[in-house]
Amino acid sequence: MPYLVPIEYVAVVVSAIYGVLLAARQGMDVVGVFAVAFAVAFGGGTLRDLFLDRTPLFWIGNAHYPMIVLGIAIVAGFVMKHIGRIKPLLLFPDAVGMALFGLTGTGYAMEAGTGPFLAALLGVITGTFGGVLGDVICNEVPSLFKPSPLYATCVFAGAWVYIGMIQLELSDEVALATGGAVIILFRLAAVKWNWSFPAIREPR
Amino acid sequence: MPYLVPIEYVAVVVSAIYGVLLAARQGMDVVGVFAVAFAVAFGGGTLRDLFLDRTPLFWIGNAHYPMIVLGIAIVAGFVMKHIGRIKPLLLFPDAVGMALFGLTGTGYAMEAGTGPFLAALLGVITGTFGGVLGDVICNEVPSLFKPSPLYATCVFAGAWVYIGMIQLELSDEVALATGGAVIILFRLAAVKWNWSFPAIREPR
Amino acid sequence: MPYLVPIEYVAVVVSAIYGVLLAARQGMDVVGVFAVAFAVAFGGGTLRDLFLDRTPLFWIGNAHYPMIVLGIAIVAGFVMKHIGRIKPLLLFPDAVGMALFGLTGTGYAMEAGTGPFLAALLGVITGTFGGVLGDVICNEVPSLFKPSPLYATCVFAGAWVYIGMIQLELSDEVALATGGAVIILFRLAAVKWNWSFPAIREPR
Repeated sequence: MPYLVPIEYVAVVVSAIYGVLLAARQGMDVVGVFAVAFAVAFGGGTLRDLFLDRTPLFWIGNAHYPMIVLGIAIVAGFVMKHIGRIKPLLLFPDAVGMALFGLTGTGYAMEAGTGPFLAALLGVITGTFGGVLGDVICNEVPSLFKPSPLYATCVFAGAWVYIGMIQLELSDEVALATGGAVIILFRLAAVKWNWSFPAIREPR
Repeated sequence: MPYLVPIEYVAVVVSAIYGVLLAARQGMDVVGVFAVAFAVAFGGGTLRDLFLDRTPLFWIGNAHYPMIVLGIAIVAGFVMKHIGRIKPLLLFPDAVGMALFGLTGTGYAMEAGTGPFLAALLGVITGTFGGVLGDVICNEVPSLFKPSPLYATCVFAGAWVYIGMIQLELSDEVALATGGAVIILFRLAAVKWNWSFPAIREPR
Repeated sequence: MPYLVPIEYVAVVVSAIYGVLLAARQGMDVVGVFAVAFAVAFGGGTLRDLFLDRTPLFWIGNAHYPMIVLGIAIVAGFVMKHIGRIKPLLLFPDAVGMALFGLTGTGYAMEAGTGPFLAALLGVITGTFGGVLGDVICNEVPSLFKPSPLYATCVFAGAWVYIGMIQLELSDEVALATGGAVIILFRLAAVKWNWSFPAIREPR
């Protein structure tokens, strides 16, 4: 699958920015900010690589990835204090990072020969695990586990669109662009109109 | 070691049911319920496979496992609201899942050529890690880490029984059935009569 | 790289002692104490081995390591109740364990052919992840993620000293001893004089 490497590149940058914003809200120092950015940017892809037995890990085979994350954390150390409310800034990099990492997880799984259901599932894991780690470190209940605007569902839907278009023998570019757009727009719409599934029963 | 595959199959089903019950108590939606069931059913075996370098991971090599877990989560979405108190239902699937995954961890470790102590330890890790993950996600202090009815100890004891019977050249069926029965009965007895170790010192 | 094996040996012992002290403060039983000691002593090196694709895992290839940790947990079950305040005892084994595991992470990464930045980073991960796991299990916010006396930074600095001396073709003994001393002394000084980075912005 071509294009997955440049997509991953952008995914790392965008996810590191998301991680840096997330950590800044918690009053962390530059080391904590780097650690959160590292976990968010590499958590999902690391699970993907371990689960699919891909070696070397993507951030070990591309040693400039961690350097980019370090650079972003250092820049954040200078600019964050000049930024007002961070919360509204979180939505967009989260959605884009989730989409791009989700596509890489789906694509590499297909490359490894899994069926479509597993490929979509690995897309969801790759796309969401970094964010889950970030939430856990920052002591928030991860969105994945509470009724809130659809999150993992958006990646799952876009992964199936991507897989379906590949199976229809459409070009990789079209399949990736459409799948990615579905994830991002679905997620933005879910947040805007507060789409969510109901709790399967009231907590008591 | 024959029989480990069908044992794992049942372990996945039972653990997914446990995960679904655990998540339903927290008022999660169907995606959260699936995520918890997935973590509980695959957490321990995934660690086992990564630690023993077994590829592909058992739920990637058996792609119907995640589908079964998804099916259980969807069914749970319909039936959970008709169930009264969930807490009393948790005990049995937890004990059975822990026992069956514990046996697979021990068996695959012996197959990989570890000594008996490591095999028993990998049984404990495989049998308990899913439940630990489930507790962590649901924001409970995992039973593994607090003085409460014996938990990991039950798997450890049953694993040694299983290993000992194999070394005495008893048949696999007998060794597995006895080891599994020891874990389940030991755990049920520990809960019923509140068997626990004392804290090694008072917290201050 | 010679010497990394004996260094790892001492790192396991020291980290297990740290884990046991950490767990004793929480009023855990002997099983919980063993589980925490296990996580602290093997968490960092396990990530290192998984990330660098080293097999078998160091505590599976050296099956006496988990037995040593079990022995330490059992001894702790007898002696901990006779110890007064534990907190002041935590500093030293934490610093030494972090230093020694940090050196092994850096050394094995260089052996695997990574560049110096990745080697230092893997040193930090190997040196700190066990402690992070211990903090998470004991429900404390890990020092890694809050402005507090420098922690990961000390390993990072010492790892670079070690790498630099190797690249200057100084002997392994000198490089390891100097790098380790830098980490330990830097950490002790950071705690004594409360050296820390500022939060990159106030939490709001």
